[in-house]
Amino acid sequence: MLSKFQLLKISAAFSTPTLQKGHSLQQIVAFGSRMGPASYTTSSRLIFRQMFEKESSTYTYLLADASHPDKPALLVDPVDKTVDRDISLVKGLGLKLMYAINTHVHADHVTGTGLLKSKLPGVKSIISKASNAKADRFVEPGDKICFGDLFLEVRATPGHTQGCVTYVTGDGPDQPQPRIAFTGDALLIRGCGRTDFQGGSSDQLYDSVHSQIFTLPGDTLMYPAHDYKGFSASSVGEEMQYNPHLTKDKETFKGIMANLKLPYPKMIDIAVPANMVCGLQDFESNL
Amino acid sequence: MLSKFQLLKISAAFSTPTLQKGHSLQQIVAFGSRMGPASYTTSSRLIFRQMFEKESSTYTYLLADASHPDKPALLVDPVDKTVDRDISLVKGLGLKLMYAINTHVHADHVTGTGLLKSKLPGVKSIISKASNAKADRFVEPGDKICFGDLFLEVRATPGHTQGCVTYVTGDGPDQPQPRIAFTGDALLIRGCGRTDFQGGSSDQLYDSVHSQIFTLPGDTLMYPAHDYKGFSASSVGEEMQYNPHLTKDKETFKGIMANLKLPYPKMIDIAVPANMVCGLQDFESNL
Repeated sequence: MLSKFQLLKISAAFSTPTLQKGHSLQQIVAFGSRMGPASYTTSSRLIFRQMFEKESSTYTYLLADASHPDKPALLVDPVDKTVDRDISLVKGLGLKLMYAINTHVHADHVTGTGLLKSKLPGVKSIISKASNAKADRFVEPGDKICFGDLFLEVRATPGHTQGCVTYVTGDGPDQPQPRIAFTGDALLIRGCGRTDFQGGSSDQLYDSVHSQIFTLPGDTLMYPAHDYKGFSASSVGEEMQYNPHLTKDKETFKGIMANLKLPYPKMIDIAVPANMVCGLQDFESNL
Repeated sequence: MLSKFQLLKISAAFSTPTLQKGHSLQQIVAFGSRMGPASYTTSSRLIFRQMFEKESSTYTYLLADASHPDKPALLVDPVDKTVDRDISLVKGLGLKLMYAINTHVHADHVTGTGLLKSKLPGVKSIISKASNAKADRFVEPGDKICFGDLFLEVRATPGHTQGCVTYVTGDGPDQPQPRIAFTGDALLIRGCGRTDFQGGSSDQLYDSVHSQIFTLPGDTLMYPAHDYKGFSASSVGEEMQYNPHLTKDKETFKGIMANLKLPYPKMIDIAVPANMVCGLQDFESNL
């Protein structure tokens, strides 16, 4: 399906092992105001990349601390099919991948955490304790996932699945400002995850989003696990204003979710069992 | 092909016509340094969005001046199939679309400029004079495309096609810092456009990239017209270090380009004639 027109076949891409001064990419985010211009300063220590897997429309995120000597890194929601791409970028930028973490047990693709662990020994998988999935480390609300001097804060946002969490960059003088929230399927750009499988609950999802995401600063950047229209990012404030469902009252929201009439998830019977064991259902001994 | 699992069907998305304080998204970019942390400050007036069209793997970019009362906006490289999505975002954020501009006459998809003009009267199409295509406004090297108090600078980067240009955000105290370069197909992430059609020349492309893009500050963010692996952004400095072809000497580069053995571009006979007239080959009277 991928058109190769106008693309060179790049066999040597990302082969350079070291990162030199001024060449590591960071995306830092600020928000406009109709009240007029303002300036935002942020530390440049965060390396941040958004990557896309077409078949499942999944976003994978790479974060690293560029200021730490080891350049420790983590991947959020890696996909099995794009693990080699992700590793090439990690190596190309001279990063040390410490963690492969999931926002939840996905039902539409197989996670790349198990493959990453097998290809990059030393990498640890992380998922929420509430997910009941296997991993090297289980996190609970309020936990911090540290990489160098940066960290992600864990917020419980169940409702799409019982174990969904949102990872938010830290709050502090040396942490990215504005903050960045990786919302998984709890909150999508102008949408949210379905709530009719995997212990889902529209009542719970509504409370999760309102209590754990919409209480973040409005300028918090919001990066979801998926987008199906080609959008790449939003913000907490924007979703508080424009999300067509989560701006409704709870009863209206529950009614919407109860009447979606979505088809049975075609990948769920393959993906969920695999993702309960880091995507390595045939290789459990690797865990 | 699009999986709808975990996605709500959002009919009301982006229906709110106005933008309120703190809710317009900006992506601002800085670059790490192995020498240690540094801080970058940027104006928050730029609204910036990256969007993706799956079939042709094309990126479309929305830019607007959030500080101007009209919130004037422009789209770079819109695709015909995603025009309605782009319009919904423009309207949802309360922007006034002024320009629909192309980096070149694309051969892999039909531009959305003509449809945008027909659906949003007042929008003007822009392309380089060297492209020989039809448009409302033709730009030449050194020209500025102003939207509010922000502007794009036009740089000639022929070689993929004879009329390729790179648009770079302005250089000045109120302009985005670091700068952002929209390189079209002249420079891709770890690659570049092919040079065997549309007046292409590997000799010329090499000179274009080295004289017009690699002379920009290393921290200049680089956003291409396409990516086929799911990467979203790079930087001038990163491509100067890691691009597997354009880091070679010119003769080696020309040899690589002469031996790519790429298939005939499957869309070229449809897309190029259409794109010569804003994608409206059947509706030339609309121009």
